[in-house]
Amino acid sequence: MRLITFRLDGAYRLGVARSDNPNEIVELAEPAGMLSLIDAGEEGMALLRDALASSRSRTHALQDLELMAPLPQPRGNVIGIGRNYQAHAEESARASGKAVDPPTVFTKAVTTVAGPYDDVVIDGDVTAQVDWEVELGVVIGRAGKNIGRERALDHVFGFVALNDVSARDIQFGWGGQYFKGKSLDGFCPIGPWIVTPDEIGNPQSLRLLLRVNGVVKQDGNTRDMIYAVDTIIEWVSRGMTLPAGAIIATGTPDGVGFARTPPEFLKPGDLMEAEVEGIGTLRNHVVSAATP
Amino acid sequence: MRLITFRLDGAYRLGVARSDNPNEIVELAEPAGMLSLIDAGEEGMALLRDALASSRSRTHALQDLELMAPLPQPRGNVIGIGRNYQAHAEESARASGKAVDPPTVFTKAVTTVAGPYDDVVIDGDVTAQVDWEVELGVVIGRAGKNIGRERALDHVFGFVALNDVSARDIQFGWGGQYFKGKSLDGFCPIGPWIVTPDEIGNPQSLRLLLRVNGVVKQDGNTRDMIYAVDTIIEWVSRGMTLPAGAIIATGTPDGVGFARTPPEFLKPGDLMEAEVEGIGTLRNHVVSAATP
Repeated sequence: MRLITFRLDGAYRLGVARSDNPNEIVELAEPAGMLSLIDAGEEGMALLRDALASSRSRTHALQDLELMAPLPQPRGNVIGIGRNYQAHAEESARASGKAVDPPTVFTKAVTTVAGPYDDVVIDGDVTAQVDWEVELGVVIGRAGKNIGRERALDHVFGFVALNDVSARDIQFGWGGQYFKGKSLDGFCPIGPWIVTPDEIGNPQSLRLLLRVNGVVKQDGNTRDMIYAVDTIIEWVSRGMTLPAGAIIATGTPDGVGFARTPPEFLKPGDLMEAEVEGIGTLRNHVVSAATP
Repeated sequence: MRLITFRLDGAYRLGVARSDNPNEIVELAEPAGMLSLIDAGEEGMALLRDALASSRSRTHALQDLELMAPLPQPRGNVIGIGRNYQAHAEESARASGKAVDPPTVFTKAVTTVAGPYDDVVIDGDVTAQVDWEVELGVVIGRAGKNIGRERALDHVFGFVALNDVSARDIQFGWGGQYFKGKSLDGFCPIGPWIVTPDEIGNPQSLRLLLRVNGVVKQDGNTRDMIYAVDTIIEWVSRGMTLPAGAIIATGTPDGVGFARTPPEFLKPGDLMEAEVEGIGTLRNHVVSAATP
């Protein structure tokens, strides 16, 4: 199933796409938001099926809807995995003149989460090096701690395309911790919808593409993750409860801007497209912060 | 004012200490929780004053109450400032054989937040190097972005004592990002209460003490911060909205365990006491995770 959050008459609403026609969206009368749907577990899934089956459900054409981030307010910061593709770990090491480091875990502020077609705003007073990172995003459906790899995918509610937009000058310049450079407002477009695991099948064979103004910059595949999704969940949940409604950004393949020769960064007017096979494409224009 | 969250009859409640007798706690009939009180702004302060003035308010003796973290669920991860005291930055550099790095920003998961007298649980399968860090914690009361230093303290709702408990083997071992080693469940005791700014006066002249089993390990003063509280707020909020209900851990003075010769780490049975002048003392026993 494909689950969306959209805005209508000023309020956020939930919708589910018909499996035989993904452009027809069935609106859910309840629950009120994606986090509530996730928390409702099996009961939530029953509400979804009921809405799809009912002839009284309100329906919309997808193209008429204003899509928001499907999970506008995840529980806790977005958890990011750094250097989870070998070729990207190597390009990063080359660009920074350091040895290749192993994967690592950081976070992005909740306030980074943005809709699939929202503008990404660059404030030139804050950063001059904004970069792209297409990733497979994982939405946790069932809380857990010390989750074993073999049961890890049972904790997944669904998948999203995710763009881990990064201000490199801050990421690498503010004492070495990534959080701040990863956390400027709106720097994490997700969506366009949450796709449930049954539709994805094997999450380790999905192509990832990032285009800037139509030019392919990243072209990878989740099969090249150093830590697969199940291993990430096992690793991250060691001693730390992963709440339902958490989002994990699983890392980006090679082709990011700062590691190019010469380095490339986003500028106002650019269009970023971040595509994950089996999910969809985020389209975010880069704009300049309004001068006061 | 001193604001507490306590548990009574299975529910969380808010209380405020009488200024002339801090051991007498006036229970608030509304709002339902500290985050709501923060969001209520001036109206919330009026509710507090009304409760203090009313003869019908329910009162409790402080020692009869089970204190919870005063803000059990901050908005977003706890924001931490690393290396914000020069002597601690230098001891860290010595211990790791590296150059002295500047301050940096990281986060601790929301699930780290624990009460002032809660046990800190060590799972020997997850970490063997648990360490202490007494800090001044800042609770943000009014959201803001690009907050200027001169107005920064207007955004502060209050202050807490905070212990930034850290698993050093994970912090330094998992690819260099601090998040995971700082984020084991219950690794951020805060409290015992939130003290409002009017009672603190100058936040840059507060003594900080950390004792383990009665022995003083850290003895610092907030006057030695590299970035003062107002500068931290200016710095962290650049391009990033600081939500109301956010907590900032402002860094720790020297005397942490991993930088000692030989290094010292916590073990089950230890008692940590983290004290901030003008606020109070957190008392957390270290216990071993129950073996299944």
